[in-house]
Amino acid sequence: MSSIETAIPALTDAALLRARYGAEAVPQTAKLNEVLRSLLAHRTVRAYLPESLPPGTLETLVAAAQSAASSSNLQLWSVIAVEDAGCKARLAQIANRQAHIEQAPLLLVWLADLSRADRLAAARGLTMEGGDYLESFMVAAIDAALAAQNAAAAAESMGLCTCYIGALRNDPERVAAELGLPPRAMALFGLCVGRENPARPAEIKPRLPQSAVLSRERYSPQDELELVARYDKTVAAFSRTQGMGDVSWSDRVFARLGSYKGLYGRERMRAALKALGFDLR
Amino acid sequence: MSSIETAIPALTDAALLRARYGAEAVPQTAKLNEVLRSLLAHRTVRAYLPESLPPGTLETLVAAAQSAASSSNLQLWSVIAVEDAGCKARLAQIANRQAHIEQAPLLLVWLADLSRADRLAAARGLTMEGGDYLESFMVAAIDAALAAQNAAAAAESMGLCTCYIGALRNDPERVAAELGLPPRAMALFGLCVGRENPARPAEIKPRLPQSAVLSRERYSPQDELELVARYDKTVAAFSRTQGMGDVSWSDRVFARLGSYKGLYGRERMRAALKALGFDLR
Repeated sequence: MSSIETAIPALTDAALLRARYGAEAVPQTAKLNEVLRSLLAHRTVRAYLPESLPPGTLETLVAAAQSAASSSNLQLWSVIAVEDAGCKARLAQIANRQAHIEQAPLLLVWLADLSRADRLAAARGLTMEGGDYLESFMVAAIDAALAAQNAAAAAESMGLCTCYIGALRNDPERVAAELGLPPRAMALFGLCVGRENPARPAEIKPRLPQSAVLSRERYSPQDELELVARYDKTVAAFSRTQGMGDVSWSDRVFARLGSYKGLYGRERMRAALKALGFDLR
Repeated sequence: MSSIETAIPALTDAALLRARYGAEAVPQTAKLNEVLRSLLAHRTVRAYLPESLPPGTLETLVAAAQSAASSSNLQLWSVIAVEDAGCKARLAQIANRQAHIEQAPLLLVWLADLSRADRLAAARGLTMEGGDYLESFMVAAIDAALAAQNAAAAAESMGLCTCYIGALRNDPERVAAELGLPPRAMALFGLCVGRENPARPAEIKPRLPQSAVLSRERYSPQDELELVARYDKTVAAFSRTQGMGDVSWSDRVFARLGSYKGLYGRERMRAALKALGFDLR
């Protein structure tokens, strides 16, 4: 069994939790094992070395992905491994020109994929009526996300870093054309995988305190406005250390969700999915 | 650092991969580290001991969940920890009477949650227009799934077992009423967490061969029907060992997706989401 590599200098358990929550909101967790440490040490990395990945890496990430749970074992997802520079450049163009898509040696594109079931049905002269419903798309999207997160966790355990690319949804039809997707397959998001460029290291991003996202028995956000006000300060301080200005978390949420203009064209997602063959009844 | 507990007897790397893919479809992975072994050893467990979880377990699972990536750091999800026997029984009733929901000491219910952003907006006298769009619901659902999968991986590293409960979507409005959800919060799925009942051990379920779900550069399902025909036999053999009859995978896919009747009432998901305040424009 090979040992786990971490891309960041080894942090103590306490330091990991302080980085994730800020010093004033550290939760009382169990003692961390190596899996937990690896999960808690996640950072979104946007600067990669160009070096290619060791043999077997892709197969390992896919094995981890397929080991995630799948609703009724339907396996309504697929993944495309993009390494071609031209393709990565075109996808980066769609995704707000994020340079790390081109830098990273591997871009995994995760698909909600009802087309496999459609092909199996066609081979028997049948149709998959259930595929016309929103529920089936939700199953596909949720299972793809479970799979992708296992792949991300696997990559990080191997000393690699990742960045999810939701901006592939800026233009689902163009992405589908670029990747040759059949009807009822849709690229949900990408995942950059590669080695971090140590000249531009990323940090652990602080999250909301646990009590802002966790309720017991019934939904009960307690002291939410106070918690968010404190978290706004934590995020603003973090942003300053990252040279990203002094914007609070709340202001970012408003900028993104306050108006449909913050959706970068994704306000037409329903029409895009319809065009890709998803009825979403 | 505490060591990683596994609920199953230690398997060699080769045995893990054979269990996941069948002997004829084992992929050439990298050497497995402890994180990879823990991910690949996942089993869905449907028989739990009643014993409660050690202190700090919930906080650890939530810390892992919050360490998953979040689109633009919006954190559009929440989780409810249900331990109350009455509540678990009522949720089990909705979820096709799955007995393990009542057995497991902890049911985590994962929410797509735009309501937090709504409350922040209301406090400023604003509205969150972006919340009316399908895209925002997708962000919330995908991020909730990423978070939940980290929690599942965390639980398994701690010697606990899990079972996702998609059947909470059988009746989203009743689940929302049971858990006191505000508008624009929706229970996507549950996650049972507990110690496996060793009298009814679960096995690693075989998945489709990698080449059936993984393409390189462009979508290209190769030899798909042959691969599925072989996988059908693998799944039928597995089902026999589990005392679950001799049903092929393809037959299960047809049973679930061939007709809307396989959706167990979830064919009305759009109406249910509308009733919960999600416009999905």
